[in-house]
Amino acid sequence: MENRKKVEVCHTPSLYDQYKKKNQVVVVIDVLRATSAMCAAFHNGVKKIIPVATLEEAKGYKDEGYIVAAERKGQIVEGFSLGNSPFGFMSGEYKDKTIVITTTNGTRAFHTARDAEQVVIGSLLNLDALSDWLIKQEKDVLCLASGWKDKFCLEDTICAGAFVDKLINSGKFTTEEDSSIAAKYLYLSARENYMAFLKASSHRKRLKALNLNEDMKYCLTPNQTNVIPIRRDNYLILLEE
Amino acid sequence: MENRKKVEVCHTPSLYDQYKKKNQVVVVIDVLRATSAMCAAFHNGVKKIIPVATLEEAKGYKDEGYIVAAERKGQIVEGFSLGNSPFGFMSGEYKDKTIVITTTNGTRAFHTARDAEQVVIGSLLNLDALSDWLIKQEKDVLCLASGWKDKFCLEDTICAGAFVDKLINSGKFTTEEDSSIAAKYLYLSARENYMAFLKASSHRKRLKALNLNEDMKYCLTPNQTNVIPIRRDNYLILLEE
Repeated sequence: MENRKKVEVCHTPSLYDQYKKKNQVVVVIDVLRATSAMCAAFHNGVKKIIPVATLEEAKGYKDEGYIVAAERKGQIVEGFSLGNSPFGFMSGEYKDKTIVITTTNGTRAFHTARDAEQVVIGSLLNLDALSDWLIKQEKDVLCLASGWKDKFCLEDTICAGAFVDKLINSGKFTTEEDSSIAAKYLYLSARENYMAFLKASSHRKRLKALNLNEDMKYCLTPNQTNVIPIRRDNYLILLEE
Repeated sequence: MENRKKVEVCHTPSLYDQYKKKNQVVVVIDVLRATSAMCAAFHNGVKKIIPVATLEEAKGYKDEGYIVAAERKGQIVEGFSLGNSPFGFMSGEYKDKTIVITTTNGTRAFHTARDAEQVVIGSLLNLDALSDWLIKQEKDVLCLASGWKDKFCLEDTICAGAFVDKLINSGKFTTEEDSSIAAKYLYLSARENYMAFLKASSHRKRLKALNLNEDMKYCLTPNQTNVIPIRRDNYLILLEE
């Protein structure tokens, strides 16, 4: 009982300092769409992803000849050929390549957790695979929702709640923060039909207006891959076990 | 449709800047127990409440002869005779008096909203009365949950969700933030039995350990009063209509 590890949820990057602990594995979550796109990219053979916070950094990498994905306001930034749509990474043309990516929220959350002992990338796409791996680590886990411009966002919280549910059901984890309890409740209400549950959400409306319904359906369908993207220095690679 | 006002929820004071707007009425909520105690105090005849952020200020007022209530860590601070238990304000001895109060979270939220056009005090105790008044104002409303040391807290979010539900049901309000949608979902799940819903919550465990179950039952029972505490300058008075 007492040696169970904690799994907690932080709803936005700006609250990270209130929830961080030593020796914690941080799961960065940006369901729509940065971390879903990262999972899709690794699933399709990408070798390395370098998340950068600013467009300036992204442009610098582009000038050096890197493949660069850049999203702002839900759209591909002018001058770049990739954004954060998972479908952009599925053609196979980026197999064994390195990709630099900058997005509105997800890459910022990645950098917020820079002091964490370990950082992995979570989404509904790799829910079971990542949960199984987290359970084996025997470390405290913090699910860091990327949110939307530092506001609470429903789909990231629901995904975080899914990780909380999986880890608690293993019998090896417990939770003590209200943020985690709320996330789990919201996940349990949402899991039968994510699209319906999110119909009123701000992000869904935003993406629907951009004709990104297919992206949403894909990102909201759990367990389409077993990849576990993990941080090394300032980039991400696929965890090989 | 388009001239409906917005009712939104901010989960903790540190996110206030992301949610604040001009011409907004801010409802400060600290269910366990500051804003519940304030409602109970006005219901029992208190004339004026001065919320202060620090113990130093509270001590200064005490030295000047004011009646001062001070709570930290769920308990009455040594040297003071009142904390934030609603039952402390029910004897009738404070009728027509001014009370100075400082608490861990609630008074801080009150000061966070210092730039708001209007600030009122909300709790489950005055849910219907305050909702009816808010509906008549025809202004945007922001429910500011006090949280617990800048973390998300379940009971304040549920109470905020109750206000969202009431205001939306009037037909005169709409909501666009995910934080508000989540709060409303949590309220709809909790309203049949708040005590059971909150059994895992951190605050309930904290108060239970302090033998404050009766306080909790009282604070979680909606509509026990019609008082609407409203800010004037740096203090609160009872709104007289």
